[in-house]
Amino acid sequence: MHPYRTHTCGQLREENAGEIARLSGWINRKRDHGQLLFIDLRDHYGLTQCVVDTSNPAFEVANRLKLESVITVTGKVVKRTAETINDKLPTGRIELQIQELTIQSEAEQIPLQVNQDADTGEDVRLRYRFLDLRRDRIHENIMLRSRVIASARRRMIEQGFTEFQTPILTASSPEGARDYLVPSRNHPGKFYALPQAPQQFKQLLMVAGFDRYFQIAPCFRDEDARADRSPGEFYQLDFEMSYVTQEDVFAAVEPVLFGIFDEFGAFRRESKPVIDQPPFRRISFAESMLKYGNDKPDLRNPLVITDVTEVFKREDVEFRAFKQTLEKGGVVRAIRAPKVSDRPRSFFDKLNDWARGLGAPGLGYIVMEAAGGKGPIAKFVPEAAQARLRDLAGLDDGDAIFFVCDQPAPAAKLAGLARTRIGEELDLIEKNAFRFCWIVDFPMYELDEETNKVIFSHNPFSMPQGGLKALEEMNPLDIKAYQYDIVCNGVELSSGAIRNHLPEVMYKAFEIAGYPPEELEARFGGMLSAFKLGAPPHGGSAPGIDRIVMLLADEPNIREVIAFPLNQRAEDLLMQAPAAVDTARLRELHLKLDLPKPKVAAQPAAGAGSGPAPAQG
Amino acid sequence: MHPYRTHTCGQLREENAGEIARLSGWINRKRDHGQLLFIDLRDHYGLTQCVVDTSNPAFEVANRLKLESVITVTGKVVKRTAETINDKLPTGRIELQIQELTIQSEAEQIPLQVNQDADTGEDVRLRYRFLDLRRDRIHENIMLRSRVIASARRRMIEQGFTEFQTPILTASSPEGARDYLVPSRNHPGKFYALPQAPQQFKQLLMVAGFDRYFQIAPCFRDEDARADRSPGEFYQLDFEMSYVTQEDVFAAVEPVLFGIFDEFGAFRRESKPVIDQPPFRRISFAESMLKYGNDKPDLRNPLVITDVTEVFKREDVEFRAFKQTLEKGGVVRAIRAPKVSDRPRSFFDKLNDWARGLGAPGLGYIVMEAAGGKGPIAKFVPEAAQARLRDLAGLDDGDAIFFVCDQPAPAAKLAGLARTRIGEELDLIEKNAFRFCWIVDFPMYELDEETNKVIFSHNPFSMPQGGLKALEEMNPLDIKAYQYDIVCNGVELSSGAIRNHLPEVMYKAFEIAGYPPEELEARFGGMLSAFKLGAPPHGGSAPGIDRIVMLLADEPNIREVIAFPLNQRAEDLLMQAPAAVDTARLRELHLKLDLPKPKVAAQPAAGAGSGPAPAQG
Repeated sequence: MHPYRTHTCGQLREENAGEIARLSGWINRKRDHGQLLFIDLRDHYGLTQCVVDTSNPAFEVANRLKLESVITVTGKVVKRTAETINDKLPTGRIELQIQELTIQSEAEQIPLQVNQDADTGEDVRLRYRFLDLRRDRIHENIMLRSRVIASARRRMIEQGFTEFQTPILTASSPEGARDYLVPSRNHPGKFYALPQAPQQFKQLLMVAGFDRYFQIAPCFRDEDARADRSPGEFYQLDFEMSYVTQEDVFAAVEPVLFGIFDEFGAFRRESKPVIDQPPFRRISFAESMLKYGNDKPDLRNPLVITDVTEVFKREDVEFRAFKQTLEKGGVVRAIRAPKVSDRPRSFFDKLNDWARGLGAPGLGYIVMEAAGGKGPIAKFVPEAAQARLRDLAGLDDGDAIFFVCDQPAPAAKLAGLARTRIGEELDLIEKNAFRFCWIVDFPMYELDEETNKVIFSHNPFSMPQGGLKALEEMNPLDIKAYQYDIVCNGVELSSGAIRNHLPEVMYKAFEIAGYPPEELEARFGGMLSAFKLGAPPHGGSAPGIDRIVMLLADEPNIREVIAFPLNQRAEDLLMQAPAAVDTARLRELHLKLDLPKPKVAAQPAAGAGSGPAPAQG
Repeated sequence: MHPYRTHTCGQLREENAGEIARLSGWINRKRDHGQLLFIDLRDHYGLTQCVVDTSNPAFEVANRLKLESVITVTGKVVKRTAETINDKLPTGRIELQIQELTIQSEAEQIPLQVNQDADTGEDVRLRYRFLDLRRDRIHENIMLRSRVIASARRRMIEQGFTEFQTPILTASSPEGARDYLVPSRNHPGKFYALPQAPQQFKQLLMVAGFDRYFQIAPCFRDEDARADRSPGEFYQLDFEMSYVTQEDVFAAVEPVLFGIFDEFGAFRRESKPVIDQPPFRRISFAESMLKYGNDKPDLRNPLVITDVTEVFKREDVEFRAFKQTLEKGGVVRAIRAPKVSDRPRSFFDKLNDWARGLGAPGLGYIVMEAAGGKGPIAKFVPEAAQARLRDLAGLDDGDAIFFVCDQPAPAAKLAGLARTRIGEELDLIEKNAFRFCWIVDFPMYELDEETNKVIFSHNPFSMPQGGLKALEEMNPLDIKAYQYDIVCNGVELSSGAIRNHLPEVMYKAFEIAGYPPEELEARFGGMLSAFKLGAPPHGGSAPGIDRIVMLLADEPNIREVIAFPLNQRAEDLLMQAPAAVDTARLRELHLKLDLPKPKVAAQPAAGAGSGPAPAQG
């Protein structure tokens, strides 16, 4: 018999009754029934009830052992009596009658509960992550993550992609966030950087003729933590294709994303969600900003924003507060709130207060009733203008319309927030759905608000629509890029682009943003030299793995879908990283510490220099 | 029609004749036949011959374009005439008659040849790696690597393993090589380390109850380059299993390794190689040192080493040179050289010279002939002793036997080298075979040659055979560990072990090697705390991906199987890493440079400070 197990803890069934089996696992729970001790033995695969009576010396041993100790038990598999069957458990029709018990690892008192969802602080959870990971919910999340990644790989290979590894010790990348640096021992004063993304290498793979690249790629950014971004490292389903248009890129990745959400959408949900079939909707950046107030619309919310500026510009509309803003280039954006005429005044007041809380003057509104509009603004908007509002925003009797009036950018933003807020208040947001869209036609350039200079809007390496001709002839602010985002339920999974592979177009594009050729060459010489030696048209994207898993697992915090995340202060409390290193190691790396001066302690006696590290934003 | 291609360059066949097709690719080669210009157009998928005549304006364009320019051509697919068919090319029965030609990317003069295997220096190859990777041989190597990794993943998943990502920004690991460090911005004076291997995390995953882990894991060691080890980063097929014996580990990974070599063994070979079927041979460390002279035997070589000390200890054998060494604890090891009696004297002299070149006094030998032994030593070894030699080493008439006499360790080493040398000289080494074995029963401890103290032989975290009892009762130098290597054709693919998961055994094991409990706790506190809260017995290994691909591709240098390797000086010549960074960045990281003083230049005028970095070993 195998020294540890003949079966896993999830394997035994009624048909095994009568067999002698051996199981190994963790003591998940114990129940002492006087003469009998029940042990729920747990491993990765499941849970089996084991039982030992006082006549067996193992009783005393089991009684003494703490929860989470690891044991091996051998005994007969017996059917449970009808009244003790547990149909929630795949092994719930049998139990194992312990004959022998061997201790593999005796546990001390555990510092966090494994067998129930207790409210444990994050620090304790991360310091004892190996215990935390034994808990059902997070154990399942991590398995989901692994299965999602394996599925993504399989689907990408089915689409003709090949996975390549790109360097992790490399040079600073142009993504614009802060790199992690790695000092070189053999090149004094020089540093490697960890890649923010394998952007340049994947483009070089295309230039090298590999045609369809993908990688479950680790990416590194020295940025502060957010709920949806772990500090340090994160993973992308990075891909790139040669000889493709934007639509080819969409067609390649849509079946992969749909397939993943279709395969895993029902995870921890009561029923299978509605998932958008490819092709996903394409929405231009301009349309998205207008209709949804941002460039990552949550399409589970059926409400859309309408521009009703024309109505408040009418001579018969005399609403001064808006007119004054319109004269200065402002706009009026409106959100329909369906069937709210029977809502109490407090509904409207609450929305107003919410808007004021965001610094807006409030949310003006009109409630459309058969007898005419009602509400604080209605009297300034005569019937004909109200009729136009009804047309523009598709209003029915009983609907209200809320207004935001400001300069275009802040108006779009507030209208977007109001759309979400109203959708939530009215419970309009689809509960069990994954709604995808591509945001396309991003502007290539924008004005820097501070300097009023033309700068790149997003990725400077995207191909401008219209190519060199557009760059030479158009107003830069009117030029669109072949740049796109994929959005699911209001979460941006990824940016992507058809790349600019033409050196002359690149020189011109950078010139417009104020970069002389020398700077382009100094910073991106490797890429430029590659593009001068035969580069195919190419493009790609890089959906975030962690975010996809968060959506599927319905977890709001990224640390719930990563096995060993750093905490919010970018520390590993278990392995104690980061840590001080020997001076000899630093000398070998040609470095000296240059520490901030210790703060003057309020109480001189409090150990100087051993205080906590500076707090982070 | 698609703007870039209706087909790839490897796709068109006779049955497409008559169709209008569009192809995009690189100009691999041009042949000017006066009225006609032939272009071999190449993409990732293959090569298609395209032709244009002088009547078409595309002729002049094509004529002007340099090799490796990227073009799109549209035209009719036509069958080649019988005499121009090229059956070596899958597309060799057709050609494309160019009607339209579009330039996608005009190449400048290329600095290295793509369409032939020219002898280009490594620096140029790495600086223009995107061109180098277009060459058939390396392009195929990199695709092989990708396919091997995908196959390994599939096979591991079939074996019930799950892939997990472990942190890359982490703490110093206990592997003992030099870590790469990453300074922390938010924790002044502290550093992350890049993992030398995910050893601790994979063990923590087992403690967390995941049962079967694997990962195609990037590993980082700040070590100098070797032919079989790239500086910087390398990849392992890292895996770990719970509730297993050593034999369970072997049984899990053998089908994966066999499967990979079976699937890809024929790569670039004329015929499919012979591959050892599981179960692979198990050879104890002691047996391997004796029979093969090292712990990574190349089993393609049929020769084995025999200990013949007893023969030279006999009273009737009077060979003083050996006797003196034997009196000081030496041994005599012997290698049979089959059927060499008809070899000229120079054969034996050459081997003798070779051994002297290694610092040995030479290789004594006896040639066994029906009439009795011949050769310089024969006269010291009477007939009865020769008969014993024949028995021990399995000698037939016509065979020779070569002797090495020294202390056991150097004798084993020289005998191992002689075994290889004789096998090569006699052309005995199998040409087209992959021969696997496990080396098992490594000693847990050894004596440090300098201090004469007991130290760990290999991995201090392996489980000693016999557990605590062995540690308490046995001579440490006699204790074996559940530690094993997997070897293929003399290449060590990986070490592995059943781990020590018992804190009390760990304290004792470290005590024997001179580490007090405090030091164990300070250095490996995270692991110890995990083992005190319920740890399963577990073990694993981590075969090196790069080495597997090198074996399959029959490439002697690891840089031939990595898309973007660092050079031997750990530089990326294309992306220019490592590089200097701004002082502001260093200040943010709380660091100052501490550069070595510039060497005094022999010629004062030669720019100080800009000289090459120090040479490496």
